[in-house]
Amino acid sequence: MGLHEDRLFPADPQQRAIARSLYETVRDLPIISPHGHTDPAWFADNAPFGNPTDFIIKPDHYLFRMLYSQGIPMERLGLGDGPDTERDPRKAWQVFAENFHLFRGTPTAIWLAWVFEEVFGIHEPLNADSGPAFYGRIDEALQQDALRPRALFDRFGIEALATTEGALDDLRHHRKIADSDWHGRVITTYRPDQVIDPDSDCFVDSLAEFGRITDCDISTFDGYLEAHRRRRAYFREVGGATATDHGHPTARTANLSDEDKSALYQTIRDGAGDAQAHETFRAQMLTEMALMSCEDGMVMQIHPGAHRNHNREVLARFGRDKGADIPTATHYVDALQPLLCRVGNRPDLTIIAFTLDETSYSRELAPLAGHYPALKLGPPWWFHDSPEGMRRFREQATETAGFYNTVGFNDDTRAFLSIPARHDVARRMDCVWLAQLVAEHRLGMDEASELAPALAYGLAKAAYRL
Amino acid sequence: MGLHEDRLFPADPQQRAIARSLYETVRDLPIISPHGHTDPAWFADNAPFGNPTDFIIKPDHYLFRMLYSQGIPMERLGLGDGPDTERDPRKAWQVFAENFHLFRGTPTAIWLAWVFEEVFGIHEPLNADSGPAFYGRIDEALQQDALRPRALFDRFGIEALATTEGALDDLRHHRKIADSDWHGRVITTYRPDQVIDPDSDCFVDSLAEFGRITDCDISTFDGYLEAHRRRRAYFREVGGATATDHGHPTARTANLSDEDKSALYQTIRDGAGDAQAHETFRAQMLTEMALMSCEDGMVMQIHPGAHRNHNREVLARFGRDKGADIPTATHYVDALQPLLCRVGNRPDLTIIAFTLDETSYSRELAPLAGHYPALKLGPPWWFHDSPEGMRRFREQATETAGFYNTVGFNDDTRAFLSIPARHDVARRMDCVWLAQLVAEHRLGMDEASELAPALAYGLAKAAYRL
Amino acid sequence: MGLHEDRLFPADPQQRAIARSLYETVRDLPIISPHGHTDPAWFADNAPFGNPTDFIIKPDHYLFRMLYSQGIPMERLGLGDGPDTERDPRKAWQVFAENFHLFRGTPTAIWLAWVFEEVFGIHEPLNADSGPAFYGRIDEALQQDALRPRALFDRFGIEALATTEGALDDLRHHRKIADSDWHGRVITTYRPDQVIDPDSDCFVDSLAEFGRITDCDISTFDGYLEAHRRRRAYFREVGGATATDHGHPTARTANLSDEDKSALYQTIRDGAGDAQAHETFRAQMLTEMALMSCEDGMVMQIHPGAHRNHNREVLARFGRDKGADIPTATHYVDALQPLLCRVGNRPDLTIIAFTLDETSYSRELAPLAGHYPALKLGPPWWFHDSPEGMRRFREQATETAGFYNTVGFNDDTRAFLSIPARHDVARRMDCVWLAQLVAEHRLGMDEASELAPALAYGLAKAAYRL
Repeated sequence: MGLHEDRLFPADPQQRAIARSLYETVRDLPIISPHGHTDPAWFADNAPFGNPTDFIIKPDHYLFRMLYSQGIPMERLGLGDGPDTERDPRKAWQVFAENFHLFRGTPTAIWLAWVFEEVFGIHEPLNADSGPAFYGRIDEALQQDALRPRALFDRFGIEALATTEGALDDLRHHRKIADSDWHGRVITTYRPDQVIDPDSDCFVDSLAEFGRITDCDISTFDGYLEAHRRRRAYFREVGGATATDHGHPTARTANLSDEDKSALYQTIRDGAGDAQAHETFRAQMLTEMALMSCEDGMVMQIHPGAHRNHNREVLARFGRDKGADIPTATHYVDALQPLLCRVGNRPDLTIIAFTLDETSYSRELAPLAGHYPALKLGPPWWFHDSPEGMRRFREQATETAGFYNTVGFNDDTRAFLSIPARHDVARRMDCVWLAQLVAEHRLGMDEASELAPALAYGLAKAAYRL
Repeated sequence: MGLHEDRLFPADPQQRAIARSLYETVRDLPIISPHGHTDPAWFADNAPFGNPTDFIIKPDHYLFRMLYSQGIPMERLGLGDGPDTERDPRKAWQVFAENFHLFRGTPTAIWLAWVFEEVFGIHEPLNADSGPAFYGRIDEALQQDALRPRALFDRFGIEALATTEGALDDLRHHRKIADSDWHGRVITTYRPDQVIDPDSDCFVDSLAEFGRITDCDISTFDGYLEAHRRRRAYFREVGGATATDHGHPTARTANLSDEDKSALYQTIRDGAGDAQAHETFRAQMLTEMALMSCEDGMVMQIHPGAHRNHNREVLARFGRDKGADIPTATHYVDALQPLLCRVGNRPDLTIIAFTLDETSYSRELAPLAGHYPALKLGPPWWFHDSPEGMRRFREQATETAGFYNTVGFNDDTRAFLSIPARHDVARRMDCVWLAQLVAEHRLGMDEASELAPALAYGLAKAAYRL
Repeated sequence: MGLHEDRLFPADPQQRAIARSLYETVRDLPIISPHGHTDPAWFADNAPFGNPTDFIIKPDHYLFRMLYSQGIPMERLGLGDGPDTERDPRKAWQVFAENFHLFRGTPTAIWLAWVFEEVFGIHEPLNADSGPAFYGRIDEALQQDALRPRALFDRFGIEALATTEGALDDLRHHRKIADSDWHGRVITTYRPDQVIDPDSDCFVDSLAEFGRITDCDISTFDGYLEAHRRRRAYFREVGGATATDHGHPTARTANLSDEDKSALYQTIRDGAGDAQAHETFRAQMLTEMALMSCEDGMVMQIHPGAHRNHNREVLARFGRDKGADIPTATHYVDALQPLLCRVGNRPDLTIIAFTLDETSYSRELAPLAGHYPALKLGPPWWFHDSPEGMRRFREQATETAGFYNTVGFNDDTRAFLSIPARHDVARRMDCVWLAQLVAEHRLGMDEASELAPALAYGLAKAAYRL
């Protein structure tokens, strides 16, 4: 599959023409990437990226989840650290090349076609025959100064890129970027799961460290909250953060009394409490984070509903983020009510809700976002960050939430090279949706012309206060 | 966005031509509006409607939910009765006009475009600049005799319009209409939630009043049922009702023994019983209502699954029906089984089930309606009463339930002016669906030509026995 | 509705041309029918099929569920054995003919149009007028040798057809086929629900019979498992089985300790245990069956989520499989985890999961199948075995699971005549999906040309090891 200039546009000539003309106005807009997982060290150190296998395959769980599902051991892709792990990156790449047909029909194929053509100038298809040549050309290109992190950041037209750091991170890379003579805007995001989720690894140790680095007495709930306040301030001041992010198993929120909050905190602080107590603590902390956002103006993102590390053997052998996180049915209406009843009516607060459960678009999230001033809908996330996923999101959310309760696109990726590819897919699919509305006389062309740049650029910039 | 004659039709020229030709045969059919919430006083008194703000904005929760979600205080639209409430209807209208772009892509934009063009003859777009002129023209028009309620009812081609009244209503407006020399058919619907749902406000008082007006001894369950029987007869005889309507939090039904029913009734009659008892009482009463429908021939509508008044602050300040009702996941298969096992095999009974949970279309409701003689599928409801919602309904329900287990369209609105607009959207979208089936050779044009008027007119008339 | 050569293809000329050209390459491929419910006696005895009513109407619950839903008593179609049952097959057929319009828009109409035209050469529409002539022509044709079971099997181009037999079946028909001089490959499938599900009728008696025919001591769990092993071997050796099939109320699996398994078995063996115990036993047995599949190489199919015999009166009067089975919400992520953690990482095992809950496609099943080597996605099943159902499956599953974690088509039918019609619908709809991807430049035509025969033939053959 090559990179056709009309890719993703509908076959109908009239609709395609409208989509194309809208897309022309947004294709070259700067990229706002307000949520993602790239490594800030890349931009701090500006060292060349590693070899094709280390840089393109190993961080991308979309790649090895598919290959693994078809019986290819992860070790053959160079993952893990056992006796079977392939140490030769060329051989690992070749396994990927030989099985590239498995990605037919997936967004990975679209993203990689863009990367191969636009970044590396390779126009032939990747397969067993072309695998070695691909490796050679990419490996060579990655040594060039023009493909170092900062150069690519500029070439990609990125106006702002948010990374995501845990609450204990010292933000050294962001400091180094700030202290450099490079103008690129790479900001952090406050992600405090490890000091909020009692089920996270080493929770008690993390809490102790949290108190130490903030100089707060975390033996009380008030002291613990103060530690968050100081850490949020640090993330804003040192890392330029404008947002927080919360990855909880569910969307549950709570609104406990002061007494209950303190008692619950004492329980979980020592690593005690049952599953119910842990869930309630996470729930209460979402409300506390929202209250702090009312104070400090940080945008709050909630990413609920992933069953993490579903495959225990893969977790044990290869660690986290290896394609074994699975979405679960997620309910928002009752779950968010305690938080929304507390702060949902504040127009100065922005809470962006994401979902892995597409049934919630029309049933729950669009109705909630179409009522509460504080709530906005995040774009299609993770498994749904794809042409069909984006189509379903617009079809199912727009009529109730409108366009202006959505917040543009998030690439949410660790795969830096794919960032422009992902934004390009989102821009195209949004233009496809607008073109359908125009072609069916449900929207004027003048309106679509205003909406296209809003969806591609303006709404993200405004929602994330960038 | 103007009112294009081919609006909502697909871009493909062949499909559009088929849709258009089918639509030509149904666009001018009389309107059957078998379920809705217009005010019968309008047609009883035939006084001019109020000013544009009072008449168009204030009763329409679709309007202020969207504006409120974008940070516009409801007071600025003239809602509430506090010190901040805008008393000048022109200023409230102007807030609406300035923010009309927020409705892009929503059905509200489509409905209002129709109202502005077809009722008021205004063809320019509503925005900050045109706002005052819109107000002036609409305000002036609403003073004309030609735009009084009965004149519009006739001009809209309404053959029958059902309003919805609570069980304690005296139907004075319907009596006045019947006693007048006007021929318009405005009928009521028996909606007994306030004397069935123990969680409703003033339930105990309502029960007492229910006994009083029916002259029944409601100290026993049999007397309570007899009160319903008499009230249903009153609604039929005085208000022309052919249907009942039940808005419960869930679709749960029950089939208790006589002893259990009586005991449960005694518990809830005094305002006692826990949440479970209340749910069971509502569940049992759906079955009792179905049994009465077997006796008296009234069509039964079940509208479950709305979490009402989700936003407690909005409820406290502005009251009910202010856009803060949110759908919830709703299950039908186990929930309806007690009722269906009792009366579902009766071909002389019609129960029309609605849903706010679109996942139930293909999984639950179409399979149930495609088997039980008594069960029919209501049209897409509330949040889903939209082009995309209608498309999903047909795509997901037709293959299992067919067309003839559906019942045509319900506008279900308080916004009288939008009734023809809503029926027009439904007629167009049904023709779009039929046109797709014809264009893909899944249906003959002769079949589509029979189905189009059935979906637009015949099925509703037959299902509601009008 | 006639049988247009471009039926099911999209209206857009370009997309239609691509779909047509892909379809040309697969329309005449042999049929692999790896899962279904035809009667092996047909092929063993090769007697003429019965009259049109007995052969076409009576076994097809799609037909009478729809007619029954519209108030037509099942007795009028010849079902049941009461005083009202129509004994004249011509009269029963005529009821069907008079109401054939009820199937408009359903897959039944498409399947039957194919059967009438392609098998019986009848090109006019079925209705009240043509009903008697249809009956006469079909009845006469069914007496011809050319329409006997084996002749039709060959004419339909069936390469392999799997039936489904219970664990206690002696496979006499499969033995007779094997002993005959006919070459047709009719194989069985091991379906042990009646000796696994403690809620099935006569469970205790079935267990005793199970021990008797396998000569195993089923008083212990080990003996019971050994009986399964022997029976699976018998199904493979005598019936040519390559697969097992499991129709459980839910997808729940378990992974109990040996002690707990034995204790649970003792409880249920005597017909004891509560609903929870029964569910746990079914859950554990799915894991046991998967473990045996690791030993003996049989492909495992899981068909969960049907609420069987929802209509108790219909069950009492007409028995099972009368159109009163209704899908329920089905969860896979937590439910399958015990099994998947035990054997899901084995690339030599194939577990094919089906669903009646379409919400699980994008949220649960595609992510699971896109990770676990052992798990594959079955095609759209039962209520979703239809053009729109197939479209939703590809739209919702492909981007995460890809094409190669799917297993081609299953017709899953008792209606032998409709098998080619159903495969034709699947082949057309898969070509429609591929054509959309090609027209939108999301897939190369060379890739689509490889995928079309894989979806129509190759994937099923490989997945079922045929």
